[in-house]
This record gives sequence, structure tokens and C-alpha cells, in this order.
Amino acid sequence: MRLINGQAAERLDLSDRAFQFGDGVFRTFYQRDGKVPFLQRHLAKLRADALALGITAPADEVWLADLRQIGSQNATLKLILTRGETPRGYVYPADLHPNRIVQSAPLPTARLWEAEGAEVRICETRAGWQPRLAGIKHLNRLENVLARAEWQDPTLFEGLLLDRDNHVIEGCMCNVLMLENGQLVTPLLDGAGVAGVMRSVVMNAAQQLGWSVAEERITLPRLLEAQRVWLSNSLIGLVPVGALAGVRWPVHEADAELYAAIGIINSKESFTL
Amino acid sequence: MRLINGQAAERLDLSDRAFQFGDGVFRTFYQRDGKVPFLQRHLAKLRADALALGITAPADEVWLADLRQIGSQNATLKLILTRGETPRGYVYPADLHPNRIVQSAPLPTARLWEAEGAEVRICETRAGWQPRLAGIKHLNRLENVLARAEWQDPTLFEGLLLDRDNHVIEGCMCNVLMLENGQLVTPLLDGAGVAGVMRSVVMNAAQQLGWSVAEERITLPRLLEAQRVWLSNSLIGLVPVGALAGVRWPVHEADAELYAAIGIINSKESFTL
Repeated sequence: MRLINGQAAERLDLSDRAFQFGDGVFRTFYQRDGKVPFLQRHLAKLRADALALGITAPADEVWLADLRQIGSQNATLKLILTRGETPRGYVYPADLHPNRIVQSAPLPTARLWEAEGAEVRICETRAGWQPRLAGIKHLNRLENVLARAEWQDPTLFEGLLLDRDNHVIEGCMCNVLMLENGQLVTPLLDGAGVAGVMRSVVMNAAQQLGWSVAEERITLPRLLEAQRVWLSNSLIGLVPVGALAGVRWPVHEADAELYAAIGIINSKESFTL
Repeated sequence: MRLINGQAAERLDLSDRAFQFGDGVFRTFYQRDGKVPFLQRHLAKLRADALALGITAPADEVWLADLRQIGSQNATLKLILTRGETPRGYVYPADLHPNRIVQSAPLPTARLWEAEGAEVRICETRAGWQPRLAGIKHLNRLENVLARAEWQDPTLFEGLLLDRDNHVIEGCMCNVLMLENGQLVTPLLDGAGVAGVMRSVVMNAAQQLGWSVAEERITLPRLLEAQRVWLSNSLIGLVPVGALAGVRWPVHEADAELYAAIGIINSKESFTL
């Protein structure tokens, strides 16, 4: 089911700038038994991302009303905010009205990779460099589409993208985090990548465990020497990497510690619609 | 007026990947007195761009039928080809059906800047780096949107984008070409930018004038020392730059030579729908 500006609808005007230019932002997350983990963080991130592009997001209450109207107990949910509709050209007027879209889809299927860690590859496609868009979950996602199209093997869960300088940036769908000498380190996303909500939750969880947390430039050799590598996003949560580029990691005690700390944050920040 | 897959329509399904990810390519050009300059080049470029993203373009005859159906004598025309519709996620099936859209809008208004050259600025926004997308006119155009939003002054015609290494890449809407010691030089677009149809026409025109033609990395200081700088795109044609970063260029004899050579190519390649 889908809502456009609070009304059930399946089709959007071709003049919408999301269609013409990818001019908008989005969030993807899930609802289970009526609860949405970290919903306030998602709405705050959507607002901040929109602001970075000069788009004013509606009040949180407007999104909440949409989410209640769409009315699933268990669903994958996607919020999209576009800059609005213009006849032609990159220029837009100051008083343009954004369009907001809420989509509901079934929950993803069972996560078999959790048991022994996910198998991950390195993509040929590089993460692009664009500091104006770095960190933002915007609608210009061709890089992710092309990188994800590199493999069909369903046993490979994710592909990592390196940037022009051979730094690890992220996966096609996930952020990357690693345990290195008791410290949680995740790529600095000042030139590329999406700074996801789940990434921020994992960083907070590590802080609550007393680990130090850092955003740094990470080469692939450095990542491969980590004690543990994880992937995060708001649909899968936190998934340990089992194998990457010939390196295998066994289950690590840090996994359970992080899951527990994330669970505590989730219990405080889970939102019942 | 708009056609979706040959049918008059104003709205596209939200599942279309152009809306979700900017997953598609496009062309913008004009028709005057029934004639479209360089139409075969546009269709060839659209096909090549689509292929670079793994999208199969329809036969040229399909686009021609759409353009005849939309039936203006004088119009700005836009062709969009999307990868098609999927429920969710970056993955797409091999047998996906692309959606093709044809839009018609009024011709742009008179071009006052031709007399003394256009006034041009340098954008704060940098041209991103992504070799998989360089040269392609794809639907991920947030960089252009953000760069174009930097100025409102209508006397400023265009803003140039430099890349991370301070090389001139292109304008928000135009390619850049310069005359340097009798040679036509234009930025090498292997990491950023759109290699436009009008750029290729101007390069061909220069070759027919006996000038040598090169694609090179061009710093801003080098551009400012050129004998002449031009902007090109398929709506404005070729426009000389009158002023940029404190440098002013007077009318140059090369302008008339290039216009004449472009006119000869146009007379051979203008297509009556």
C-alpha cells in the first residue's frame, strides 16, 4: 500500500523532481508487532537529510499519521520526501511544495546469515566522491544499483565499495563497522556513503559498552586485520561478516555484547505506532 | 504533453526505479519548424547511455513514433528511459521492461546572451567522481540541482563545476570547450560530467575547420588563459563565454567559423519528424 501526501495512490506526477532528477531523500525501516525500532532517529535523519538538500520536511506528526493510516503490524516501510513538482530544468522556486510518500511492503524473509556470519565480496564499482551528498540518504542511488548488479549468487550477502583512494566506504545496502584493538571503527563518510541510523545505534551501543568509537579512513588490508567486522542497516540490524576476500572470522564475544547493548537502546527507542 | 510507453499519461507508477533510485537515462533537445537537430545522435547517445547502465533501449523507430504522436512543430522535447518497475530493493530481474517517457514543453525564450557572450560563475559545489557514471546523461542529477541552486541572479547564465583535483568539468547545464593556440580543448570526462551531443557536434565542427581537437584535464587558470571559451548544450547550441572569474573575452573570429561549421553539420543531420 502507498500514500502520497496522506492519500492512497499508486502513481506520481511525471513532473515530480524525484522522477526527473532523483531530487529527494528517503528512509527504509520495519515495523514488527506494531513497533518501529528507532523511529524518532529515522524521522530526525530524514529531516536532516532533507535540510541538507534545501527541502523542508513535514512535522513528525504528519509522518506518524501516515504510518498509522497505512496500518500494518508487520511491514517494511519506506518514507520518501521529494522536492516537489516543476515543469522543467534544475531551477526550482522557493515556495515549492514537497511530496511525501509512504510505502508498505511485506517484512523481509528469515535471516539465515546470522548463524555463521555473512559472506561478503568486494565490488568493482567504486564509491563516488561528492562531499555535498556524503552521508545523506538521497534518491540518487545508481551507484548502489550498479554495484548490487555485479553478483547474482544468493549466498553472497553484500558487496563492499572502496573509494578512489582505496578506502572502504560501505556496502551496497549496509554500513561497515569493525572491532580493532577494543575500539569500534567505522569509515569516515565525508566524501561518500550514507551515514545510516543503525550505524549510529551501533556506535552508541559500543559507547555504552565502554568501547571507544572512531570514524576513520580504513583501507581494505586494515579492515581484513580487524578482530571482527559487522554490517548494519535498519532492515537487517547488525550482521557479523563471516568471510571477505579470503579471510574468515569466527563468532566473537563482541557480537553478543553489541547485540545486548543494541537491545537495551531498542527497548528505550522502539516506537509503537 | 506526455507519453508513457506511447500512451498519453501524466503519472507514473511509484514502483518505477527512476522514482526510487534515479535508475534511468534521458535526453533533452528541441524541435523547431518540425526539425530536430542531430536527432540520430541523440537516439544513439540515449542507447549508449542506457547500455552502460544495463538497460536496453527501444528501437529508434519506437521513439520516432512517439515523437510524431506528440506532434509539436516547435517544442522542447525530453526522452526518458527508466529501467522499469520493481517492488523494492536495488536488485532487478534480467527480464525487466523499461519504461519510456516522452515529454513536450514550449521552446525556451530568446537568447539574449549571444550578443556579447554569457556571464559565468564558478560553483562552490564540486563535480563528483564516479567513473561508472562519467559521461552518461543519467537521472541522478542532484549534483546539478544543488550547483544550480547556488545563484538566483538571472544575468548569470551558467556556473562551472570543478572536480576534487581542481579540474574544470562542466557547467550545471552545459559542456565547456576552449580555444587554446588554435586547438579546441574540452575537459576529459572519465571521472565526472556528461559528454553531451552538442559537445560532440562542436568537436566535429572544429575538426572540419582543420583545428586539432583534444580532451584533456583543464585547470581553472588554464581555462582563464584560453583565447575563447564556449558553453554547449542541445537547447542553447554553442554560446561564447563573455566573462568568468574576472576575465572578459571579446567576440572572437573563431565564433563565426564554428557557427558556420556547426550549421553545415546541422543541415546534414537535421531530422524532420
